[in-house]
Amino acid sequence: MTDRLRIAINTGGGDAPGLNAVIYAVTMAAHRRGWEVYGIQSGYAGLLDTSKMAPLTPERVSGIVPYGGTILGTTNRGDPFHRPVPGVPGEFRDESGVIVENFRRLGFDVLVAVGGDGSLSIAHKLSQKGIPVVGVPKTIDNDLAGTLQTFGFDTAVSTATDALDKLGSTAASHERVMVVEVMGRYAGWIALNSGASGSADAILIPEVPFEIDKVCARIAENERHGKRWGIVVVAEGATPKGGAMVTRAPAADGRTEVILGGIAEQVAAEITRRTGKETRSLVLGHLQRGGSPTTFDRLLALRFGAAAIRLIAEGHRNVMVAFRPPEMVAVPIPDVISKTKKVPVDSDTILTCRDMGISFGD
Amino acid sequence: MTDRLRIAINTGGGDAPGLNAVIYAVTMAAHRRGWEVYGIQSGYAGLLDTSKMAPLTPERVSGIVPYGGTILGTTNRGDPFHRPVPGVPGEFRDESGVIVENFRRLGFDVLVAVGGDGSLSIAHKLSQKGIPVVGVPKTIDNDLAGTLQTFGFDTAVSTATDALDKLGSTAASHERVMVVEVMGRYAGWIALNSGASGSADAILIPEVPFEIDKVCARIAENERHGKRWGIVVVAEGATPKGGAMVTRAPAADGRTEVILGGIAEQVAAEITRRTGKETRSLVLGHLQRGGSPTTFDRLLALRFGAAAIRLIAEGHRNVMVAFRPPEMVAVPIPDVISKTKKVPVDSDTILTCRDMGISFGD
Amino acid sequence: MTDRLRIAINTGGGDAPGLNAVIYAVTMAAHRRGWEVYGIQSGYAGLLDTSKMAPLTPERVSGIVPYGGTILGTTNRGDPFHRPVPGVPGEFRDESGVIVENFRRLGFDVLVAVGGDGSLSIAHKLSQKGIPVVGVPKTIDNDLAGTLQTFGFDTAVSTATDALDKLGSTAASHERVMVVEVMGRYAGWIALNSGASGSADAILIPEVPFEIDKVCARIAENERHGKRWGIVVVAEGATPKGGAMVTRAPAADGRTEVILGGIAEQVAAEITRRTGKETRSLVLGHLQRGGSPTTFDRLLALRFGAAAIRLIAEGHRNVMVAFRPPEMVAVPIPDVISKTKKVPVDSDTILTCRDMGISFGD
Amino acid sequence: MTDRLRIAINTGGGDAPGLNAVIYAVTMAAHRRGWEVYGIQSGYAGLLDTSKMAPLTPERVSGIVPYGGTILGTTNRGDPFHRPVPGVPGEFRDESGVIVENFRRLGFDVLVAVGGDGSLSIAHKLSQKGIPVVGVPKTIDNDLAGTLQTFGFDTAVSTATDALDKLGSTAASHERVMVVEVMGRYAGWIALNSGASGSADAILIPEVPFEIDKVCARIAENERHGKRWGIVVVAEGATPKGGAMVTRAPAADGRTEVILGGIAEQVAAEITRRTGKETRSLVLGHLQRGGSPTTFDRLLALRFGAAAIRLIAEGHRNVMVAFRPPEMVAVPIPDVISKTKKVPVDSDTILTCRDMGISFGD
Repeated sequence: MTDRLRIAINTGGGDAPGLNAVIYAVTMAAHRRGWEVYGIQSGYAGLLDTSKMAPLTPERVSGIVPYGGTILGTTNRGDPFHRPVPGVPGEFRDESGVIVENFRRLGFDVLVAVGGDGSLSIAHKLSQKGIPVVGVPKTIDNDLAGTLQTFGFDTAVSTATDALDKLGSTAASHERVMVVEVMGRYAGWIALNSGASGSADAILIPEVPFEIDKVCARIAENERHGKRWGIVVVAEGATPKGGAMVTRAPAADGRTEVILGGIAEQVAAEITRRTGKETRSLVLGHLQRGGSPTTFDRLLALRFGAAAIRLIAEGHRNVMVAFRPPEMVAVPIPDVISKTKKVPVDSDTILTCRDMGISFGD
Repeated sequence: MTDRLRIAINTGGGDAPGLNAVIYAVTMAAHRRGWEVYGIQSGYAGLLDTSKMAPLTPERVSGIVPYGGTILGTTNRGDPFHRPVPGVPGEFRDESGVIVENFRRLGFDVLVAVGGDGSLSIAHKLSQKGIPVVGVPKTIDNDLAGTLQTFGFDTAVSTATDALDKLGSTAASHERVMVVEVMGRYAGWIALNSGASGSADAILIPEVPFEIDKVCARIAENERHGKRWGIVVVAEGATPKGGAMVTRAPAADGRTEVILGGIAEQVAAEITRRTGKETRSLVLGHLQRGGSPTTFDRLLALRFGAAAIRLIAEGHRNVMVAFRPPEMVAVPIPDVISKTKKVPVDSDTILTCRDMGISFGD
Repeated sequence: MTDRLRIAINTGGGDAPGLNAVIYAVTMAAHRRGWEVYGIQSGYAGLLDTSKMAPLTPERVSGIVPYGGTILGTTNRGDPFHRPVPGVPGEFRDESGVIVENFRRLGFDVLVAVGGDGSLSIAHKLSQKGIPVVGVPKTIDNDLAGTLQTFGFDTAVSTATDALDKLGSTAASHERVMVVEVMGRYAGWIALNSGASGSADAILIPEVPFEIDKVCARIAENERHGKRWGIVVVAEGATPKGGAMVTRAPAADGRTEVILGGIAEQVAAEITRRTGKETRSLVLGHLQRGGSPTTFDRLLALRFGAAAIRLIAEGHRNVMVAFRPPEMVAVPIPDVISKTKKVPVDSDTILTCRDMGISFGD
Repeated sequence: MTDRLRIAINTGGGDAPGLNAVIYAVTMAAHRRGWEVYGIQSGYAGLLDTSKMAPLTPERVSGIVPYGGTILGTTNRGDPFHRPVPGVPGEFRDESGVIVENFRRLGFDVLVAVGGDGSLSIAHKLSQKGIPVVGVPKTIDNDLAGTLQTFGFDTAVSTATDALDKLGSTAASHERVMVVEVMGRYAGWIALNSGASGSADAILIPEVPFEIDKVCARIAENERHGKRWGIVVVAEGATPKGGAMVTRAPAADGRTEVILGGIAEQVAAEITRRTGKETRSLVLGHLQRGGSPTTFDRLLALRFGAAAIRLIAEGHRNVMVAFRPPEMVAVPIPDVISKTKKVPVDSDTILTCRDMGISFGD
């Protein structure tokens, strides 16, 4: 049934450690079946411009597994259903027809779309226009529905935990509070797991609206026990109950005010204001996206890639590969898009944190 | 129901990265409930000699999470049901009664036994003599039944994968085959996961008896594709079909013979003999047991420890904490002891390896 | 001459990876000679309050070498010659007399002062009041005169390079420019070494005033060669020639302006403004101070510590231990304080960078 | 004088982390001057077979700096002055004339030879036949004369220290002695630096012949202080005074004997025999050669590479680049070959070790 398929693979959205491992496994598993694989550069845009694709062979992908980034060059975010019209600002048009045409003309059988919610939504719309699609979930935030975990998440958590270790030894030496902002606009997975592993004093996540007073109370409690420093981990999407956070602070020039951009800066300013404790903030930002995948993520990404080809060989189409340990399973793409997998507030890891005395500010 | 319990905790068997995190979480979660925790040194022997226990407080365990080893000093293997009689070689006696007596006299309510199959079996026998026990599974081999994964395993796999990366770059430069022996006497989990992550050419595990000819064929295939080097990962318990392995090689003195001790040496000797290819072997040994736990293992170990206390608080006794992602659950200890969790030969990771062209020698 | 000395050791200024290794070596080397060592907490303040000192024994320091932070608890910056008078804001007094008295009363023979320029200046003033001092240089910025290198610097450079690796793979995937601010207020050692190791496109350091136009030209050159991303490393003390940098940007609310606090934010804003290229900035901050020392820094710190004791045994006083590879030598403290070791603009590493096409914006 | 040179670069001898960084810097620094660079594969053999060379451009070397191994594919050890005659075992011939001819015919101006003592000796002989040569020292053993340090050494020491950390936590938990064999046939640099950084109990190096009794005494002293474990680091070239080491042990079959191959196995057997202490050995082997270079080695290797081109541009020929911190200098190749840079027995690091109570078995 599946002899000599021709597979296209693209990666969309932000960088995630393990992308190359997915590409490696897809290429190896396809070639083992005698199929062909073509790498599409620049996300979906690469299907508009046919110069942006190149055959992926075992020789080409040899040795790429440990490396960060992606050999497909970029993880461009363009939406082919909504492309800016050159020279006409604010004007957009649907170019998905070109993709469908190119896909057919080049003789592709299946598109392996490695991406997050946005990319999978586009994949779903393309599937409705006749392009057979198999999705591989990709978000370091780990907030994609349907799969227990996404590749890149373990690496992001490790990077954040490593940062907490480093900042902890410095905070202790300097008797300071450090507020560390990690990724997680809609879900607090990275903050939760790194905060637990890194023995934070408080973890603030979107799923648990926080009271800044309770965070300050936790810091004050440290002092009473002779611990003159603290670590607060804040997901970028954490929000205060009520919302009485400081958003401006006096600038160094004494005349103007600094607008406190991120939640970490605001939390730090509040802690200083309310406890008098010297408090600094740090935004980890893209440090969490890059670098070599951890061994866990390498293997997870390889398994995602190989499973994508196996599902295709079994006849699956328009599904996403999902990790349900110890298995990889197929779930229909419509079942997972436009949903956010949030941290259950009574999850085992949250209970573990509370048991270890970590405050969620609630 | 559970007010003011007095918990004893010991660790038995070999070292595993994450032991300190278990101890930390047990201590914190117990103290949060107003309970007391005592650390028992030297495994079960510490319950024979009451000088070998000390209270564990939040202050005492502060900062230990990232560190390898165990603050309980040793993970002695002594079996209290079968203690050597001093001065009478070959004679043993059952001293478990002393343990039961000490346990009661000191007012302990529950023993948290962190250990592998042997330690949990002893825990089970002690529970039959009236000591309430909750077990935490510990083996870097990941072969304990009932739990998807044990702490320390991810660290061991990472260490092994890191070694494969290093040996790979050297094997390539020197155009050699490297045979790397990793832990796994009864199950091939470490070999499988590290070999997959580290792009080995062949993985030999107890679950899949290998033919050395097929391993050599895989190496020869490399050469045909212009890859003049190779990596073979061997679990210490891997066994050849039939068993025609070389076990002796001429010594450097030309007169005597060297006995090839481990399976890696034997496989390397066979590859050299059959393919003429320069082949070296390396035994990773205890490198896999030590060091700081990975972030994954830190969190897993913390969750095991906190769950142990939570289960005790809920009234569970004579159970082992088991990881069934995303939850921690209680399983009766008799259900898990004297069993080995082997790698299913059709598991997703094995299929992934085969899809990537990795040989199992079968 | 040196039998049974009683040594006090303190650490001043900011955290630096390797502090514990210095303390370990000082303790071991002193005990080997039959001397005593006392650890003084909170920098010089610990000599005002005699409750803040504790004997350091081989048992106490066992195992501390790999760990970040300092077992002396804090690296407080207080200056005993200029102590705030409690209750009288803006008032200060000289309490150095108390230190001299305590030092004598407790029978100390030598103070080993581990610190940067500020701490060593205080040490020098104390030596003039009769306290025999031996200094160990400590600054992760590597800008202390008299010594080729200070401990902690290699770790800071490694952390910064690791960040550049991670940000590079993400910048490439996202086709962005990343501006990374590293420590170095007066000297560009960290920026230079990490930028060279991490293949930055431009490195901006205090020693070489930069023209933002030249930095932008370098980014534009990347584009012409098909490299659609870039990395700029900026030392916090880098300054533009002339000084026409943007310091404000429109805030997200559209009404007010954000004050761009750091040099990295300003450089990023200028690059965006002048090249139209999407540019982000990241401040590594205290990540560079913390964590386990690299092996290089461990050994260097151990050598500094042991050499301090050896110099004391040889009768040296009021000197700083200096690293002149492969030796450790004594230099008079007055020869090194109030000086800054800047990067020579024609140093071999700068020439190496220029040879690799890295711009200094000049 | 130096316009438009044509450079050939080869790498000889064993793998060393940093080779790619040397190649990168040579390529970039040459291209910046408008020169050409050709990479010669398979060491000197690549100059016999002109199919084994390829132009190195900035695009080709982009991104290779962090990676282990060498993009030149192999570090073959062939000596062109002494090539085996195919089909005539034991017969060799001088093929250096072919190299000289090829070198000239292809229009090369200078050969950059990256290698150890053997490769540099060949380079010297080629220079006497008219090939202008500039050498870059390469040995992870750090035993090359004329240069304070070679690239790859810091990485090897880090790998060994990391192993000691891991083995230490396990040795402590199991109350065992671990004997770890590291590289260093003629000089003990790796053993010395890793043993110092990793807090070994004893370090055995070629420069200090050891008495096994003294090593055992050190282990016994541990026990007296309540430390029931130990770590002994042995350079592969360490030799006992006198030479009364055990070289055979009873095999597991009870009938035959195992020949103890390496010095670590022998030392471990002696410690067991003399102290009754459970002792294990581990040979780190090629783990020390591979992997990503440390940041220190990256920068050092880049500096070596750029300096090689700079020296060529300045007219130097038949010199080796040498690291004399903070500078890179040129030393005549004959001044460094056939010499071994041994550890001075009164070097600062040896004194540091002695001060920390580390035994050299003397």
